[in-house]
Amino acid sequence: MSDHITVLADLAEVLEQRKHENADASYVASLYAAGINKILEKIGEEATEVIIAGKEAAVDTAKQDALVKEIADLWFHTMVLLASQGMSSDAVLSELARRFGTGGHDEKASRDA
Amino acid sequence: MSDHITVLADLAEVLEQRKHENADASYVASLYAAGINKILEKIGEEATEVIIAGKEAAVDTAKQDALVKEIADLWFHTMVLLASQGMSSDAVLSELARRFGTGGHDEKASRDA
Amino acid sequence: MSDHITVLADLAEVLEQRKHENADASYVASLYAAGINKILEKIGEEATEVIIAGKEAAVDTAKQDALVKEIADLWFHTMVLLASQGMSSDAVLSELARRFGTGGHDEKASRDA
Amino acid sequence: MSDHITVLADLAEVLEQRKHENADASYVASLYAAGINKILEKIGEEATEVIIAGKEAAVDTAKQDALVKEIADLWFHTMVLLASQGMSSDAVLSELARRFGTGGHDEKASRDA
Repeated sequence: MSDHITVLADLAEVLEQRKHENADASYVASLYAAGINKILEKIGEEATEVIIAGKEAAVDTAKQDALVKEIADLWFHTMVLLASQGMSSDAVLSELARRFGTGGHDEKASRDA
Repeated sequence: MSDHITVLADLAEVLEQRKHENADASYVASLYAAGINKILEKIGEEATEVIIAGKEAAVDTAKQDALVKEIADLWFHTMVLLASQGMSSDAVLSELARRFGTGGHDEKASRDA
Repeated sequence: MSDHITVLADLAEVLEQRKHENADASYVASLYAAGINKILEKIGEEATEVIIAGKEAAVDTAKQDALVKEIADLWFHTMVLLASQGMSSDAVLSELARRFGTGGHDEKASRDA
Repeated sequence: MSDHITVLADLAEVLEQRKHENADASYVASLYAAGINKILEKIGEEATEVIIAGKEAAVDTAKQDALVKEIADLWFHTMVLLASQGMSSDAVLSELARRFGTGGHDEKASRDA
């Protein structure tokens, strides 16, 4: 984990920089320009692809790499959504840490709280 | 970011431990016991809630916290999916690092590759 | 098709009647009371179940009945959504008829229009 | 409802005819050729668009027509899925009639059965 521990922070920085680019300069800039509906549609699409890839990986371990790529796509687009709203994955990690970080907590109780 | 940088690794460890528990002992153990379809259904549900929360946050910044919580739920359940298939978010971070980590890469070219 | 040709109209009538019932009197009344987000969440859930059932039916024809049931659930909840907004499946059939009903139309051109 | 009562049956017939066409001859033929995953991805996409349009229609009745169009798209693609598996909307209508057609049935009991 050591060499990619900062990837989410690095990526958040890239997503900020893309706000200053034209829509035709990068994929992310085109999503910002297209607006919230387009970003949310991408999240629906990527979630669908995770579900399909999950069904396939469950019966064929050769499809595990494809599943990882789809989950990466899904996380990536949620990060674009966060950036578009002035936030970052930092808030998501804080939320997960609040729920799970103190070690002794049971995640179910935590989620119900 | 300093105090929750290890939350994904910590959470991956928790998800591994839950494999040795009975289905009624924790929420995650109940998902493992229910099987792949139940886990994928949760991902579909959480993605839907992200989309709804995203529409609301886009017109009301007071709803941003709720959006973060929904994205945390979605990431959490993708981590349960990964754990159920013998993987972890480590693979997702590696994939994101491969695409974005070297800094100079344009994410669109990276995704198209 | 003869004996269920009116099922959509009959069901639309039932969905209207449910508007005059208490939330605990029927499932549909409880959805109306819960509001738009709950109805949309159900659509996301049922769509996910269609996708999972579709993957299974594609490799095992014994799962075809289950797929039909999931699609019925999805149509049903879109009809609840329509009713909640003062509309019915009648509008959907009109839209499909507009696109396809005149026979000579190509559906792709129709959708692009 | 009188003039489009047969639209689902008419459309089912069109979807059958498309099986004898080349992938580049029509949109539906291209979906058949692309395979089950592509068809399921379209269902995920269209469901997402229904959810987004549902949020908008709930606060702006001027968006009701757009919601109807998205639901028509969703129904259409479930009909393509059914046709790809050798079935039609006839099976969905039968299932809905079985649940609701006899009038006296409560839909919740019916769904739980």
